[in-house]
Amino acid sequence: MKRYEALAADIEASICAGVLRPGDKLPSVRHTCTSRGVSASTVFQAYYLLEARGLVQARERSGYFVRAGLRRAPPEPEQASQPTGQSIAVDVSERVFEVLESSMARDVVPLGSAFPSPLLYPLQRLGQALATSAKSLDPWRSVDDLTPGHADLRRQIALRYLAAGMPVSADDIVITNGALEALNLCLTAVTRAGDAVVVESPTFYAALQSLERMGLHAIEVPTHPREGIDLAALEAAIVRHRPKACWLMTTFQNPLGSLMPEAKKKALVALTTRHGVALIEDDVYAELYFGDHRPLPAKAFDTEGLVLHCGSFSKSLAPGYRIGWAAPGRFTRAVARHKLTSTLSASAPAQAALALYLERGGFDKHLRKLRAALAAQQAVFAQAVGHYFPPGTRATRPEGGYFLWVELPEGCDALHIHRQALAQGISVAPGPIFSASHAFTNCLRLNYGHTWNARTEQALATLGQISAAAA
Amino acid sequence: MKRYEALAADIEASICAGVLRPGDKLPSVRHTCTSRGVSASTVFQAYYLLEARGLVQARERSGYFVRAGLRRAPPEPEQASQPTGQSIAVDVSERVFEVLESSMARDVVPLGSAFPSPLLYPLQRLGQALATSAKSLDPWRSVDDLTPGHADLRRQIALRYLAAGMPVSADDIVITNGALEALNLCLTAVTRAGDAVVVESPTFYAALQSLERMGLHAIEVPTHPREGIDLAALEAAIVRHRPKACWLMTTFQNPLGSLMPEAKKKALVALTTRHGVALIEDDVYAELYFGDHRPLPAKAFDTEGLVLHCGSFSKSLAPGYRIGWAAPGRFTRAVARHKLTSTLSASAPAQAALALYLERGGFDKHLRKLRAALAAQQAVFAQAVGHYFPPGTRATRPEGGYFLWVELPEGCDALHIHRQALAQGISVAPGPIFSASHAFTNCLRLNYGHTWNARTEQALATLGQISAAAA
Repeated sequence: MKRYEALAADIEASICAGVLRPGDKLPSVRHTCTSRGVSASTVFQAYYLLEARGLVQARERSGYFVRAGLRRAPPEPEQASQPTGQSIAVDVSERVFEVLESSMARDVVPLGSAFPSPLLYPLQRLGQALATSAKSLDPWRSVDDLTPGHADLRRQIALRYLAAGMPVSADDIVITNGALEALNLCLTAVTRAGDAVVVESPTFYAALQSLERMGLHAIEVPTHPREGIDLAALEAAIVRHRPKACWLMTTFQNPLGSLMPEAKKKALVALTTRHGVALIEDDVYAELYFGDHRPLPAKAFDTEGLVLHCGSFSKSLAPGYRIGWAAPGRFTRAVARHKLTSTLSASAPAQAALALYLERGGFDKHLRKLRAALAAQQAVFAQAVGHYFPPGTRATRPEGGYFLWVELPEGCDALHIHRQALAQGISVAPGPIFSASHAFTNCLRLNYGHTWNARTEQALATLGQISAAAA
Repeated sequence: MKRYEALAADIEASICAGVLRPGDKLPSVRHTCTSRGVSASTVFQAYYLLEARGLVQARERSGYFVRAGLRRAPPEPEQASQPTGQSIAVDVSERVFEVLESSMARDVVPLGSAFPSPLLYPLQRLGQALATSAKSLDPWRSVDDLTPGHADLRRQIALRYLAAGMPVSADDIVITNGALEALNLCLTAVTRAGDAVVVESPTFYAALQSLERMGLHAIEVPTHPREGIDLAALEAAIVRHRPKACWLMTTFQNPLGSLMPEAKKKALVALTTRHGVALIEDDVYAELYFGDHRPLPAKAFDTEGLVLHCGSFSKSLAPGYRIGWAAPGRFTRAVARHKLTSTLSASAPAQAALALYLERGGFDKHLRKLRAALAAQQAVFAQAVGHYFPPGTRATRPEGGYFLWVELPEGCDALHIHRQALAQGISVAPGPIFSASHAFTNCLRLNYGHTWNARTEQALATLGQISAAAA
């Protein structure tokens, strides 16, 4: 990070934390030069950057001010969802694809994207690791490391489990083509066509698409926007429908951002274990926490090997490398074998590069920067939603990740808003794609994982207008 | 290739072609120095290398001679297989894994391996391409190129189709995690659990494992060791069982090595198209031909988009990179979507590196070297099989690829031989893993894709003894 960027980040943090409030004057350039020991041009560059991001504005001959009307985030949603409780055949994939494919153009403001900005990742250092490991690649490893995957990489992943106090060894890990493959392999290992699977309500659309492709039924269980799935409702659903698996995100759930408290995760594992139901835990956002420690996954409370934990480097380190993993407990052998017969192995150069990067150190430093950037972006983003969206709008304030879940006033049609916004070059992820029963018709998932700038501000203003008109 | 290696390769080619015959004296070192314009030490190095490979032997004070008793390849099998004609539920995966897992140790002589020696591939130039492309990776491509895959790579693949006279464009191609994923995605696109699928007899075990995992039934159709599947039997099976797909290898079939003549491929496509059956064509060995041109795939005769053609760089260029593709005709959209919901995309650095390597040129030069090496290895290998194996043994002589299919005398138990050989540090692929009906009990698939040397010779001698004892 350059000097002026560091300065801008500090000021942004002060604004987000409420130390500098709307209308406050920023310290004068001369004062900042002295207090920070930097040149005037560095200070100007920092202020220009904050201005470009819509955080401050210049007033002629008066200096820079925190933008007036800056701005309160909307209230959070309070109610858990209320799905029907039925076990239903899934038929959402076509609609999900329609929405996703329409939003993929690079010139669209990517509020509906599933990915954060790739600029947040250490692509240059990864490239160096790739170049170094490519030169010293042992030809025979292309055969040796097929599945369960590159031995050093599995060891590095195991070390991170160890650091979190979890007894997952390198032999318990299967490297996959991203977490999505890990989740699918776990699902294949514990279900057969016709079985029922518990999901949250709302849930990640890719989970629904996997159920649909594999002929599985979905049981949507009430889920609270802050604390995750309702355990009493979950137990009732298990007793009633006898599902073979639960596919859950206990930490920074997609789309809600909900984080189950640790005690609740422990109770969850006790519950699924008592009923002999496999728990497939999608934990890809865990490293993106804004608090002071990585939230433990449900896997940490697993004593019987019934939690199949799935992770990935796609959101934390290396987008596009497609390296994820499963720690499938007692299903490790089954998952490894399904991997061998479906895609054989993950890409050897990508595995070797990540192993080398992790070994060299610097991952945690990168993560600290990434988390700080996402937390700051969330603050500005949420305030802009509060500012531009119609009264009655609610939005989650997750403690990690890069999604806001926005509940618009009753009667707003998210699919209509999606189409209107797209016509103006803005993508959103409309609520109904997160539900097998096409619920959440007045909800949107918005991605704040891209650098805040005037274009984002304008897009949220437009989106607010469209929503107000729809309300 | 170093000077002495080039010289050794030339002499090896002369031996394989029968120009130098068993018992012939090699030209004297002095003569070769003069005729080739190389130093005596280069000639000695070449002769030592040939000696290490078991091709020549030194006689004291007389010079070097092509090994006596060198040796006639066994006769080829003549009969097409005779499977039962039933549609059967597949239950082979456990046995296949037992065999494969037992054979994976690096110190085993890998005659049962599915992979050729990684030393045959231009890993250093690939590493350079990886290093160069890693430095200039456009961060946004990690999102843009998700599926159907890296645009330049798809264009490079399309150029090779074009060169073969086939109208497959970049938009018709979906990049996958190796051909195995391509084949699985194609199968997913055209079948549902309970459907029947035609396979060759014998067939690649991974096809059987895929059918088993997806709850599909196999119809094994008689297949000739030189000319591939029997079309009359295929039509009868289609009429009788109404399969949803045929999964076939028309070029250098694994394990037989059979190559369907082009006219037969054309008739095959006419037949499957007439019956509206999708033809999934596994074409991963096509570039490994020993003749003077790449055999056209069945896809070349596809007018209705019912041939789903699957290829890969794993056998031709970049083992371990896990980059393959499908050209699925009218199922392209369905395959791309299944890809998105199962593994999302292939690894971006591997795709970019291959695109760059192909663009820089040199692929065809590498392929010429690879084909020459495999052809030479086949010749020596087949002769050794003829020399050491018991009378009554037959072996295919494929015009490409790196497998021999060996029929031992009736009564030999391939699974028994597999266990005996493994106890002596040699792996083989026993016939029954290539059949849903556990047939081919007296057959072995042997891999000649590793450099011939004294250890290979010894392994074949041992295997011959074990087989003779079993006969």
